Amino acid sequence: MPRPTSALALGGAFVTTLLLAGPTTAQDYDPEARLAEMGITLPEGRVEGRMFNQAVQTGNLVFTSGHAPCGEWPEEAGEFRGRGKVPSEVSTEMAQLAARQVVVCTLANLKAHLGDLSRVTRVVRVFGMVNSDADFTGQSGVMNAASQLLMDVFGEERGRHVRSAVGMVSLPVGLTVEIEMVFEVENN
Amino acid sequence: MPRPTSALALGGAFVTTLLLAGPTTAQDYDPEARLAEMGITLPEGRVEGRMFNQAVQTGNLVFTSGHAPCGEWPEEAGEFRGRGKVPSEVSTEMAQLAARQVVVCTLANLKAHLGDLSRVTRVVRVFGMVNSDADFTGQSGVMNAASQLLMDVFGEERGRHVRSAVGMVSLPVGLTVEIEMVFEVENN
Amino acid sequence: MPRPTSALALGGAFVTTLLLAGPTTAQDYDPEARLAEMGITLPEGRVEGRMFNQAVQTGNLVFTSGHAPCGEWPEEAGEFRGRGKVPSEVSTEMAQLAARQVVVCTLANLKAHLGDLSRVTRVVRVFGMVNSDADFTGQSGVMNAASQLLMDVFGEERGRHVRSAVGMVSLPVGLTVEIEMVFEVENN
Repeated sequence: MPRPTSALALGGAFVTTLLLAGPTTAQDYDPEARLAEMGITLPEGRVEGRMFNQAVQTGNLVFTSGHAPCGEWPEEAGEFRGRGKVPSEVSTEMAQLAARQVVVCTLANLKAHLGDLSRVTRVVRVFGMVNSDADFTGQSGVMNAASQLLMDVFGEERGRHVRSAVGMVSLPVGLTVEIEMVFEVENN
Repeated sequence: MPRPTSALALGGAFVTTLLLAGPTTAQDYDPEARLAEMGITLPEGRVEGRMFNQAVQTGNLVFTSGHAPCGEWPEEAGEFRGRGKVPSEVSTEMAQLAARQVVVCTLANLKAHLGDLSRVTRVVRVFGMVNSDADFTGQSGVMNAASQLLMDVFGEERGRHVRSAVGMVSLPVGLTVEIEMVFEVENN
Repeated sequence: MPRPTSALALGGAFVTTLLLAGPTTAQDYDPEARLAEMGITLPEGRVEGRMFNQAVQTGNLVFTSGHAPCGEWPEEAGEFRGRGKVPSEVSTEMAQLAARQVVVCTLANLKAHLGDLSRVTRVVRVFGMVNSDADFTGQSGVMNAASQLLMDVFGEERGRHVRSAVGMVSLPVGLTVEIEMVFEVENN
């Protein structure tokens, strides 16, 4: 005896509607194409380091190490390469460029782990550490550059994460920004 | 045809026993009633922000953003609204009130995500960041106010978490305390 | 005619080869024996504290609290017991000893939770916080001592983690190093 139309079948119809609905469809989900459209080239990534890894997967979560910036810096960065304290040595605007390049570097290493960034189903957590003077209170503004880039690349729905933006008294090699993340990915 | 006694049915009997067992039973687990008993009213929560979310769920883990305090402050807070460094600008006692209001704010946003706080099965992780002078060493004391509130609300068993209490050189908008958490929740 | 060497059979042969290959085989996976070989005795561990726990498991992840050092210090530590800021009060070399004793203390409490450390399938995340002067930039060097010990104990494959090494303006009771970790463990 045939089973009646089930909730699952209705779910299927709903998914079909979503797929036809425009810019937020699964078909359009291509983070690497989005990076290319934005003129961002990921540098060659690498998972394994000497003392620790840049990414470790457990279940369908990928944890990434606290990253430094890398990749090609935009012209407005001038000679700045992401070192120094905010704001006594580095302006908020420059720190935002650093935050952005830290995301670029994280995505490069994440791609080395995943093969393709379209396997990311959700950016879960962003922990943004800004090398700060004791009276600097603009860490959120600095980290907005990272959050915006993640939403631009992964889309509003998958790119939206929880975030902490905090002030560190100092960071390795004098980094301006170090970011640690957690991503949810498709099961293998 | 009657169904055989299954493992599930036995499981049901076990659950019934638990329900009759006294103060730790599932029936008593009502974090929102506990809040009310303590005279704490959660403010209206909100999950989605402009640049990031206050809560993101992956599997049965909910990560929450680094939160600022919100909600109704107790009378002893006076004009204090959770800004300033410990101890040069803010006493440990005032910082404890800030920590408590950060938990209140996190629970308000968590409730907005979950619908009901009784869906929390475990408070997993509390990362407590205290805006500190370089010689302040009392971060644990500040964070005890947050830990105590979590145990009061969720009970000794579910409320008990791992914790780090640490000193930040500065925090966004001069916050005294920012807390990031992870909760385990019932599967959807 | 019997055949066929299957992919699975080849896989089996490959695994056998690994098992015969020496120090990295599954049979050899005995983190507690490795600790003993290195002359490290874990102190008595403890999961439950007054205000929070040292370890909380959710699914097959164990989160551990930000730990202080404990256990038997090596002779070269002299009177140093892991208090003070780097480098004005504590040298990088001494801070490395502190980092190592923090790992020892974490493993002691993790063993109290798991029963046996061989249930660890992966060290996932190491968040290393170094009590730092504003111009200290050597946090990675300090944390290498912790990473190396984890790889020595759990082996190159399981011991490799993601890591952040960061500078804190101050830590509870003046700790030199506090470390928070996440471990993946066998399902119960």
